[in-house]
Amino acid sequence: MKLRVAVVGATGIAGQQFMPVLNNHPWFEVKRVAASKRSAGKTYREALTDANGSFRYWAGELPKDEILDLTVEDAAELNLDDIDLVFAAVESDAARELEPLYAKTTPVISTASAFRYEEDTPIMVAGVNMDHAELIKVQQKRRGWKGFIVPIPNCTVTGLVVTLKPLVETVGVEYVLVTTMQALSGAGRSPGVLGLDIIDNVIPYIPGEEGKVEREGQKILGTLAGDRIEPMALPVSATCTRVPVLDGHTEAVFVAAKRKADLDEVKEAMASFGKEFVELGLPSAPDRLIHVHDDEFRPQPRFDRELGGGMTTSVGRLRHDHVLPNGLKYVLLSHNTKMGAAKGAVLTAEYLVHAGYIPRP
Amino acid sequence: MKLRVAVVGATGIAGQQFMPVLNNHPWFEVKRVAASKRSAGKTYREALTDANGSFRYWAGELPKDEILDLTVEDAAELNLDDIDLVFAAVESDAARELEPLYAKTTPVISTASAFRYEEDTPIMVAGVNMDHAELIKVQQKRRGWKGFIVPIPNCTVTGLVVTLKPLVETVGVEYVLVTTMQALSGAGRSPGVLGLDIIDNVIPYIPGEEGKVEREGQKILGTLAGDRIEPMALPVSATCTRVPVLDGHTEAVFVAAKRKADLDEVKEAMASFGKEFVELGLPSAPDRLIHVHDDEFRPQPRFDRELGGGMTTSVGRLRHDHVLPNGLKYVLLSHNTKMGAAKGAVLTAEYLVHAGYIPRP
Amino acid sequence: MKLRVAVVGATGIAGQQFMPVLNNHPWFEVKRVAASKRSAGKTYREALTDANGSFRYWAGELPKDEILDLTVEDAAELNLDDIDLVFAAVESDAARELEPLYAKTTPVISTASAFRYEEDTPIMVAGVNMDHAELIKVQQKRRGWKGFIVPIPNCTVTGLVVTLKPLVETVGVEYVLVTTMQALSGAGRSPGVLGLDIIDNVIPYIPGEEGKVEREGQKILGTLAGDRIEPMALPVSATCTRVPVLDGHTEAVFVAAKRKADLDEVKEAMASFGKEFVELGLPSAPDRLIHVHDDEFRPQPRFDRELGGGMTTSVGRLRHDHVLPNGLKYVLLSHNTKMGAAKGAVLTAEYLVHAGYIPRP
Amino acid sequence: MKLRVAVVGATGIAGQQFMPVLNNHPWFEVKRVAASKRSAGKTYREALTDANGSFRYWAGELPKDEILDLTVEDAAELNLDDIDLVFAAVESDAARELEPLYAKTTPVISTASAFRYEEDTPIMVAGVNMDHAELIKVQQKRRGWKGFIVPIPNCTVTGLVVTLKPLVETVGVEYVLVTTMQALSGAGRSPGVLGLDIIDNVIPYIPGEEGKVEREGQKILGTLAGDRIEPMALPVSATCTRVPVLDGHTEAVFVAAKRKADLDEVKEAMASFGKEFVELGLPSAPDRLIHVHDDEFRPQPRFDRELGGGMTTSVGRLRHDHVLPNGLKYVLLSHNTKMGAAKGAVLTAEYLVHAGYIPRP
Repeated sequence: MKLRVAVVGATGIAGQQFMPVLNNHPWFEVKRVAASKRSAGKTYREALTDANGSFRYWAGELPKDEILDLTVEDAAELNLDDIDLVFAAVESDAARELEPLYAKTTPVISTASAFRYEEDTPIMVAGVNMDHAELIKVQQKRRGWKGFIVPIPNCTVTGLVVTLKPLVETVGVEYVLVTTMQALSGAGRSPGVLGLDIIDNVIPYIPGEEGKVEREGQKILGTLAGDRIEPMALPVSATCTRVPVLDGHTEAVFVAAKRKADLDEVKEAMASFGKEFVELGLPSAPDRLIHVHDDEFRPQPRFDRELGGGMTTSVGRLRHDHVLPNGLKYVLLSHNTKMGAAKGAVLTAEYLVHAGYIPRP
Repeated sequence: MKLRVAVVGATGIAGQQFMPVLNNHPWFEVKRVAASKRSAGKTYREALTDANGSFRYWAGELPKDEILDLTVEDAAELNLDDIDLVFAAVESDAARELEPLYAKTTPVISTASAFRYEEDTPIMVAGVNMDHAELIKVQQKRRGWKGFIVPIPNCTVTGLVVTLKPLVETVGVEYVLVTTMQALSGAGRSPGVLGLDIIDNVIPYIPGEEGKVEREGQKILGTLAGDRIEPMALPVSATCTRVPVLDGHTEAVFVAAKRKADLDEVKEAMASFGKEFVELGLPSAPDRLIHVHDDEFRPQPRFDRELGGGMTTSVGRLRHDHVLPNGLKYVLLSHNTKMGAAKGAVLTAEYLVHAGYIPRP
Repeated sequence: MKLRVAVVGATGIAGQQFMPVLNNHPWFEVKRVAASKRSAGKTYREALTDANGSFRYWAGELPKDEILDLTVEDAAELNLDDIDLVFAAVESDAARELEPLYAKTTPVISTASAFRYEEDTPIMVAGVNMDHAELIKVQQKRRGWKGFIVPIPNCTVTGLVVTLKPLVETVGVEYVLVTTMQALSGAGRSPGVLGLDIIDNVIPYIPGEEGKVEREGQKILGTLAGDRIEPMALPVSATCTRVPVLDGHTEAVFVAAKRKADLDEVKEAMASFGKEFVELGLPSAPDRLIHVHDDEFRPQPRFDRELGGGMTTSVGRLRHDHVLPNGLKYVLLSHNTKMGAAKGAVLTAEYLVHAGYIPRP
Repeated sequence: MKLRVAVVGATGIAGQQFMPVLNNHPWFEVKRVAASKRSAGKTYREALTDANGSFRYWAGELPKDEILDLTVEDAAELNLDDIDLVFAAVESDAARELEPLYAKTTPVISTASAFRYEEDTPIMVAGVNMDHAELIKVQQKRRGWKGFIVPIPNCTVTGLVVTLKPLVETVGVEYVLVTTMQALSGAGRSPGVLGLDIIDNVIPYIPGEEGKVEREGQKILGTLAGDRIEPMALPVSATCTRVPVLDGHTEAVFVAAKRKADLDEVKEAMASFGKEFVELGLPSAPDRLIHVHDDEFRPQPRFDRELGGGMTTSVGRLRHDHVLPNGLKYVLLSHNTKMGAAKGAVLTAEYLVHAGYIPRP
């Protein structure tokens, strides 16, 4: 029997991206969709159709008719009586209000930043810090919730922590400098980035982004210490830019390691990273978390972003850096709307079901 | 009376880019154009016209008729009797053979890398290391040339050294990490980068580029020590990528400084850098070498590359970096086919005329 | 003594585009800027600066300080006491209300469609239908205005009528089929076209555009008949698409002519079209209205849109069409934000000053 | 037992595109790959690997190891003893020499134009003119071949004839005018179109293309008349342009029909076109040949090109044209490297196997 799922923020681009992942999911079934009061009462199909009759859906594979025929509910009054799990994809301000309402009774996996920095809340990245799930119990106890809130990180952080984790586990990491070349889909559609502003251009600033990159990684790579996460002492310095790429964040990473690393050792650590997690065989998991490219011209967003169904992080150009102490440098590519967003959230939920944090009905 | 100039490699894209700069130049007049034997004997106009009658010229403002009507000469047999100055824009292998022939009698300003690493040869960047011109005399003496060879650096190096020099002069620089987002024009046209390969994409590798960036800066920022340049001890680590931008190299720079810097001090050092050079009033010089943007969304290649006629380097997002010792970070933008190529070469020549290294006729 | 000009809608992108044209204009001086009540009371500089301190100006050359220091007025209460001429660049609904207020006392040149289809109002395209200016007197008389309203056409119409007019005058035109490939700047910025929607894409529909193209040309090419324009009997069928181009509308035109045309005759008619108009030497006029390209690969938006300061329409690939009666086909390129918008409006105003319709102060 | 297949021109981009289609094909197995003498003797894997170790393969899904391990043969000396079918993807000049050698013994499906205009050779488009296959017998008899040569058309023709055929069958077609907006992949890679030439641009000319469009459609839509095809009397006038799109040719079509059409009738004719063909259930066939979009903003290359596995032609914006007699107009989208190239060739071969023209082993 499948878990009954509600998707909140279902009309927005971030919410839509859950649909292809959940459309024929073996464990989850979308039973409810919610959005702002403006869409409430319409069918999901109607809510996605604009005044001119155009279907405003940009997430690829269409939801099946059972989903399109659901009546959109007002997110502020969402009935969760027969719902086992909520995927929430709303703006941070809305999340701060709505998610606690849901969490009283129901597990919530969230793409918003609202609760990421709460002490009793883990930021979870599938395959990276599954042990942090224990913090859910602290959260439930402290807040008196039957459910819980588990956010995933900012999409730019995901690829970074996936690739840093095997380094932390082998050669150790002192600090990190990263320059990102981020895709347009990361900016969403409201307002998003105009074609006029990005064709033949690079925009060297993404408001708020660098702070998230510098902060969230330390928590994700931190250590569960009783009823809190002890953040890793990992200084990160980021410059985040926007480039004319549709999907897939590219990041040029420079790492000061704790000890001199052999490149083959590092490659092996990356290539085999998450093996146990992958072997759980969760429905949305790729066959490997990291693919290490030997071809120096890779990874490239257009050719590599869909690797492992958009869930495999690509690493290329791994080499020594002769400037930093025990320096390493590489380029990574992570699919920002799959591993870095909806599909990553679903994989996290799958793990939490597997591990018993989300009860099966 | 104007200096009579020959442009070698005039049919190629790098050579063509000299034309708009020299078209109505107050000091220089193009009297001769040379290319490979294949084009020799045609008029320049014919040599630029392909079999289908299309004019294969991509450098903007057309050369005036006097130039288009010149007969293209075989670069290997170029007569320099009445030529005061050669601008050479040929591939490195060809440069290694041709440029010494010319230098016997005539000053050569070169865009090629062939002689950049010779001990008696300065790599010159207008406004940055004008004192290195003294090395020309060493070169002339050692090689028995009346002329000389002065190369400009790789176009990716130019913006970097322009912005590092004021840092070196004020707060000092220990080492540098840089990620570049380079324009397509830097790859030229033979073969260049296909639209199929770069639209909606980033290519994380440019063969040979990182080595040049890591090496040439040290020489340019070095100190003239008798008959050689003592390279600056300045470790540079680069990751060079190609992005879907037509012109203008963007570079995200992280600097470990020698001492803690006040941001206003650094801005001021950059903004006023090269003031004396600029005040020489050379024809191709901009009104300032560096423009410091306060708007965090700048510089952007499409909007800022033409600043100062493509000769002003833009710096934006100047801020502290909390990871590196006395860390600073910023984003720069440099026009790779103007300041970083033909127009930079012409400005260098203008200085060498001004300073007497290139004799007026 | 210069004419004192007000620009209404000055904060929007269409209004901004007047600034580089008027910045150092020999006849016109911007004395007033107006916008919605929201911007009123701020300086123009402040009104262009967003909450984050970024300067939201996209029209190229910055207005001079005298203009940036003007106080933005509420367009609904604009004082025109000492204003000789209004350039209005507001949405059609606002235009319908505001422009008649101004026209009571002052000539208004408008980019909006609000009055284009009024019987006593000419749609003017510089160099094409200058004789239609006589209708201004009809309009003034009928409406009791001292000023008047003269709209320019939709930007897609401009290139079409510029190139059809010499055909009409020589070989005659029965009907026209046109497919447009329109630039992003034509869609403006509110909301404009997202990068996510247009990179690696063509959008085959632009709401409302085809109707304008099919209708406005007939009026512009019509004949002044007493107190109205007798529209030309010129059926036009258009398919309008959006392509990933920043500026410059490309149009593939098929024409059924009234008689068999010799291509050289047609070329000559186009190349010499508007000679008398050009010879007036108006400040914003190009040196020719049409440039006929012989190179089959031209015109291309990126290389040809700035021809004649963005005021010359390019025609290429002129050839016989063997399907339509006396068929001709060609590709045209017109700069949609220069000849097709602000700069075209200014050139029209220049003519109206020259011809005495707009009184000099 | 599968048919044993040779792919000639396997190292080129057109040849590579056969690989994903044939990789796990239920009827065909790639047993041999051939290319120019330069690649002969290497494994296919080696032949696809450049001097720097980069894998030069751009067709998506990698060939399986059995294919990558095949030894590339010299196309001029290809042994076809145990081969049932050849897919040839070489330049036209090479095709003229090589394909007759193969056809002596073996059926050849070709992407080249070399034989398209031969009187005894059909140009086949899957689902459109399957009855033309009878001409194969004429060809075999006349030339004394056991095999045959069947070319597919130019990729721009494919979408056009797929959509014209149902019009021909219902309302009749007098003549057609078409403007194409073609993708970069249609230009291949040697030399292909540079990013420098196409970003922010439209190129209004594709050498040779318009002639093919105007000529090949008439033959494909013609009638088998004894031992030849009587071309349809269908004048076509084309303007072919290149736009910054990776895959998918968009075409704006204007049709003069033989009788007044009801739009619903036309839609129905298109939507149901090829029903019988589709119902054959051939492995590469889509579930419908044409999809008619009601959303005016569709088709768009990026969102619709993969419809039906790249084998469904999209039609949108179907409406009356009021200029042409019984005018209709619409926009079509066809995947130029799938339906318009390799996958279309494979589907044609599947039909020819089904219908007995290609013998099963």
